[in-house]
Amino acid sequence: MKLFSGIGGTAPVQASGPVPPGLLEAFDAYETALLTNDVAALDALFAPGPHTVRGDGTHLLVGHDAIAGFRSGRTVIPTRRVTGVLVRPVGDDAALLMASTRAPAGGATGLQTQMWQRVEGVWKVGAAHVSLPARPAPAVDESIWRVVGTPMVDASGRGPLDGATVAVKDLFAVAGQKTGAGNPAWLAGQEPNVASAPAVGALLGAGAVITGIARTDEFAYSLAGQNAHYGTPPNPAVPQGISGGSTSGPASAVALRQVDIGLGTDTAGSIRVPASYQGLVGLRTTHGAVSAEGVLPLAPSFDTVGWLTRDAATALRVAEVLLPAATATSATRTLALPTVDALATPDVARALQTERERLVAEGLLPPLEQADLTTEVLEEWFTAFRTLQAHEAWAANGDWITAHPGTLGADVAARFTAASTITDDQAAEARAVVGLARTVLADLLEGAVLVLPSSAGGAPARDAGPDQVEAERAGTLRMTCLAGLAGAPALSLPRLRTADGRPAGLCLLGAPGSDRDLLQLAISGGLA
Amino acid sequence: MKLFSGIGGTAPVQASGPVPPGLLEAFDAYETALLTNDVAALDALFAPGPHTVRGDGTHLLVGHDAIAGFRSGRTVIPTRRVTGVLVRPVGDDAALLMASTRAPAGGATGLQTQMWQRVEGVWKVGAAHVSLPARPAPAVDESIWRVVGTPMVDASGRGPLDGATVAVKDLFAVAGQKTGAGNPAWLAGQEPNVASAPAVGALLGAGAVITGIARTDEFAYSLAGQNAHYGTPPNPAVPQGISGGSTSGPASAVALRQVDIGLGTDTAGSIRVPASYQGLVGLRTTHGAVSAEGVLPLAPSFDTVGWLTRDAATALRVAEVLLPAATATSATRTLALPTVDALATPDVARALQTERERLVAEGLLPPLEQADLTTEVLEEWFTAFRTLQAHEAWAANGDWITAHPGTLGADVAARFTAASTITDDQAAEARAVVGLARTVLADLLEGAVLVLPSSAGGAPARDAGPDQVEAERAGTLRMTCLAGLAGAPALSLPRLRTADGRPAGLCLLGAPGSDRDLLQLAISGGLA
Repeated sequence: MKLFSGIGGTAPVQASGPVPPGLLEAFDAYETALLTNDVAALDALFAPGPHTVRGDGTHLLVGHDAIAGFRSGRTVIPTRRVTGVLVRPVGDDAALLMASTRAPAGGATGLQTQMWQRVEGVWKVGAAHVSLPARPAPAVDESIWRVVGTPMVDASGRGPLDGATVAVKDLFAVAGQKTGAGNPAWLAGQEPNVASAPAVGALLGAGAVITGIARTDEFAYSLAGQNAHYGTPPNPAVPQGISGGSTSGPASAVALRQVDIGLGTDTAGSIRVPASYQGLVGLRTTHGAVSAEGVLPLAPSFDTVGWLTRDAATALRVAEVLLPAATATSATRTLALPTVDALATPDVARALQTERERLVAEGLLPPLEQADLTTEVLEEWFTAFRTLQAHEAWAANGDWITAHPGTLGADVAARFTAASTITDDQAAEARAVVGLARTVLADLLEGAVLVLPSSAGGAPARDAGPDQVEAERAGTLRMTCLAGLAGAPALSLPRLRTADGRPAGLCLLGAPGSDRDLLQLAISGGLA
Repeated sequence: MKLFSGIGGTAPVQASGPVPPGLLEAFDAYETALLTNDVAALDALFAPGPHTVRGDGTHLLVGHDAIAGFRSGRTVIPTRRVTGVLVRPVGDDAALLMASTRAPAGGATGLQTQMWQRVEGVWKVGAAHVSLPARPAPAVDESIWRVVGTPMVDASGRGPLDGATVAVKDLFAVAGQKTGAGNPAWLAGQEPNVASAPAVGALLGAGAVITGIARTDEFAYSLAGQNAHYGTPPNPAVPQGISGGSTSGPASAVALRQVDIGLGTDTAGSIRVPASYQGLVGLRTTHGAVSAEGVLPLAPSFDTVGWLTRDAATALRVAEVLLPAATATSATRTLALPTVDALATPDVARALQTERERLVAEGLLPPLEQADLTTEVLEEWFTAFRTLQAHEAWAANGDWITAHPGTLGADVAARFTAASTITDDQAAEARAVVGLARTVLADLLEGAVLVLPSSAGGAPARDAGPDQVEAERAGTLRMTCLAGLAGAPALSLPRLRTADGRPAGLCLLGAPGSDRDLLQLAISGGLA
């Protein structure tokens, strides 16, 4: 048997016919260039032009330029040896070459298939398909989870949630476990909780099991999910995108089908934003409807318990366990707030409008009315919301943060520093505006369902610049604050897409107490 | 742009030249056959003969027959749709086709590359490379772990194990956690432990953290790792092989680099066998040298605490924490027991002999002597060992097993049933033989290191027949029982290979108390 002798050693060659001259030498040059990261040599070995293609199962790059761009940005260089080569000549000037590879130290096997063609006497790769050896997985993805079990906590009863699995945001007390709040210094100072939060206990009593305790942004004071200590959980709907937060770990665990239910909190969008970014169902409940006992507070005037699921039916089963008995109100009007819609990116705003009109036209939502809310009023309300939220967040966490300097991630630290400057007078003024807004919104929402975007756009890229992140955040907060101001339930449904295909949520916001009605609307309309 | 219209819907086709007639129709027939599991049609679409090839990064199948055999044995049928097709014609009668695919419900992307060739007017696939969409990973691999954290338990002090991560076999008490013993019915009846086992506490005090509690065979009464309730942990060194047990989960966690140290127990090989099968370092300690307090007993006459690592230096750091101060004995003789070697498979026996002679010749081990142990004596000792082990195992677990019928996996249940029949008289007789063997072995091991195989062969296949498993087990137990009979330490080192490349352990068995000497021998000889 012929032997291939290259940079990684020798390997047997099995061919279906005479191996064309120069082919194995060209392949050797390719392997050498790859393992030494000789980008110029690799570029020269790939055929020029728009038809050259390289794929690896996750990404398909078409055109020499796209492939060259990928190579120049690559920072991890493969280490491997070729363990076998198959050659399948096609005529005199083309051959398919398949090389089996193996990572060092008994590592995983890989396979690369290359279509080589001889153009003007020189062998070039026209198409390549690479199966990369899988990297060893850690015992647990620490960007998603802090503790996990099979399950971690067994059900304590039977009921509508029999067999359902739950990821609990690391703000809830779970008996025998500490509460970590997304910050390692905080965690280090905790003792195990003696009792579980009532919301957790109710799920266990209804037959659910707790798979584990999942990540939160630090003290829940972010909408991004980019925890400085534990990383950003994956967003399977947008592989290059952030997860959204602060209920970041539970959302990713639900999206990855690791659990059925993500139990979290929503003060200013912390359920709705990750639901929107990951294409999930997310319910923020009516303020005060679900006990927040045993849950670390952020801003009690707005804090609510909520949950993320992959479908509305599961979300309703949770609602039947955690929420008071259903009221029998049903909306007779669909509301739109053009001022709010205009804060979304144009593609999301357009998708929302189209979907909202379709739902009304098909009778899945009641007749549409445009409501009037000026930009000035929205801005005044939003400022009051943020001021009061910040004041309460500092009241809840300021002492600990002051005593533990340097322990917060930069963005959360900056937010708390700003929060620390708010005076009691400013907070009192904000509280008055919030009270007014709540009254106005109560009138507006009476018998109505407000349909707005859950977030200004889809998930920003993990490496998006601060301006882009801040623009998304600023628009989103002006949408999400309305439920907080109203003390109202808000249900994010995976109904929209950005122009480039990222999911975005359509949000149903109802009068306080209408939580189950929103879920019923979603279910009867086939919306999730 | 041209459209491909097939069973999964339509997809754009991008070609570098005119698409040869009939090619897309043939590809459509292929997709239809694949998604409907029409094995005959798939066989007909692959070119006949020995050069047809199909690879997926893990396996490469060469020849039409091998591919057909794979298809006929496949039980999971892909569900996916084609999202894009690239065609790269090569002459008139050949074309490379690359199809991007996507799993349902926003699932992962895949890529398949096919070399099509027209033979006598009919298009056939001559080569195929498939990147399968990755399956969603669970939150935790329940074949390896029961509970896991980041970490699960923090260090309580600093020392030689600073930052080292530990998987604790589910037989050790960990404060705040239950002890599961590899059986869900047992686990359900447990309360969380108030205190950790001293061995666990000592590791934490020396700076190690506990990543989690890892799987054991039920009540540690098996060498296979094939837990009937939680599955068989992966063996990364032998992907189709069993893990070995009963310290199965810790071994896999170490081999997968999820932790540095696997803390376990060894009664009749439960550290040495998984070390052997997975290419790890595994130390069974001198009987009584490490406290077994807080560890569920199997057979106290032989039970020992031990650990698995990827290198001998880490194993020595653990020894410095858990074992008494070093004695200063050093072996002056290397012993071989031809009777025992002969129980290994011929390839392992040969590999052992070659390696042992090399080590002696290079002065890494002291001069070699052949010791005399007849098959009859070995068989008598082994029978006594098994009898006493079984009697003690029933004494430790019989009441619970009797009270919980039907809760054990079949093989472990059968073993306990057999154990239940052993009379006190039989046990007393066995104990006398064990005492005699211990005296004989103490003489034999004085100033010596016995070099033998850690297991009769490499890891059996997961689907190996019962005869093969029993043959491997029978040979292995006659090797591993010697350390138990002697109360002696035994160190398995990843020095051997089976004929087909599976790892197997070379075992150093020393006089009681020589645990650290064995590790020093391994380190100074560069053996692991």
